[in-house]
Amino acid sequence: MIELPLEEVYKLIEPGPVVLVTTENNGVNNVMTMSWHMAVEFVPPLIACIIVPGDYSFNALTKNGECVIAVPTVELAEKTVDIGNCSGEDTDKFKKFGLTPVAAEKVKAPLISECFANFECRVEDTTLVEKFGLFILEVVKAWTDPDHTEKRTFHARGDGTFEVDGKILNLKERMVKWPECM
Amino acid sequence: MIELPLEEVYKLIEPGPVVLVTTENNGVNNVMTMSWHMAVEFVPPLIACIIVPGDYSFNALTKNGECVIAVPTVELAEKTVDIGNCSGEDTDKFKKFGLTPVAAEKVKAPLISECFANFECRVEDTTLVEKFGLFILEVVKAWTDPDHTEKRTFHARGDGTFEVDGKILNLKERMVKWPECM
Repeated sequence: MIELPLEEVYKLIEPGPVVLVTTENNGVNNVMTMSWHMAVEFVPPLIACIIVPGDYSFNALTKNGECVIAVPTVELAEKTVDIGNCSGEDTDKFKKFGLTPVAAEKVKAPLISECFANFECRVEDTTLVEKFGLFILEVVKAWTDPDHTEKRTFHARGDGTFEVDGKILNLKERMVKWPECM
Repeated sequence: MIELPLEEVYKLIEPGPVVLVTTENNGVNNVMTMSWHMAVEFVPPLIACIIVPGDYSFNALTKNGECVIAVPTVELAEKTVDIGNCSGEDTDKFKKFGLTPVAAEKVKAPLISECFANFECRVEDTTLVEKFGLFILEVVKAWTDPDHTEKRTFHARGDGTFEVDGKILNLKERMVKWPECM
């Protein structure tokens, strides 16, 4: 994996793909599946997400204030769904699903080698955690795999079906107000 | 348009499509384009979004605490991008882009007739508006157009290109932990 400039991070979150979230707690890695997230700021990149006490990852995230957001592409869709349908409470998901943890640089939670991109995150704001499970994360280091040729992500439709990225529309010439986003 | 049950709303937000947001201020309608949003709760449906003071809609939203989130499908992609590249400060966007405002039931902001789905929203929480421009909206009434045959939404990639929904993966049988989401 090579470093991804921090100003590129929002471009992978804004489309709204299903992502994986890794945490580390007392030397044990865990991973969950997440679709409720959004970009909050360009640089430093901030990401909001919903992780509630019913999620086994909640304790590790609140205790350590760190996680990794990993972006899977479509070849990992079935595995990603299965990861979201069991719990770290009784399952070593890295082992069960054959994921390869890679040491991150700035957080203890692991990167996932099989994912196209990985974002090391620290919790930046917990004001709305108690009310909504809403965390604000700051991405402190980002990585991408230049050899990962599959670029298509997938999006949860909330009913067990998922949209795979299809045709790309190039409307760059219409972005007259936002030249910095091109 | 017919009523969409509130428990169906998150299924249209969770995939992360580009949406339109309408507001009303002193009898004047406005509309903006938005990609930074996420589902926060199933029922009542809560949606978080980022709208900052630099957005002309910010004042109407903070003043009236109401808006409509409208979900465009792919035939509206170019128009949606153009809406995001001019300002209600000097443009009547409903007129300029040929959008048809329809009276909502519970808020003053208008529905958009050309959109597949419309969600009437009230601001539920403003705790993080000053720090991040983060609003929590509650959807109080939802609508869908049963005659709208195009169902494909599109997703912003943050660089003037957009992903159109492609292939649908049906992984319902793997959702063993979330039977209520099927």
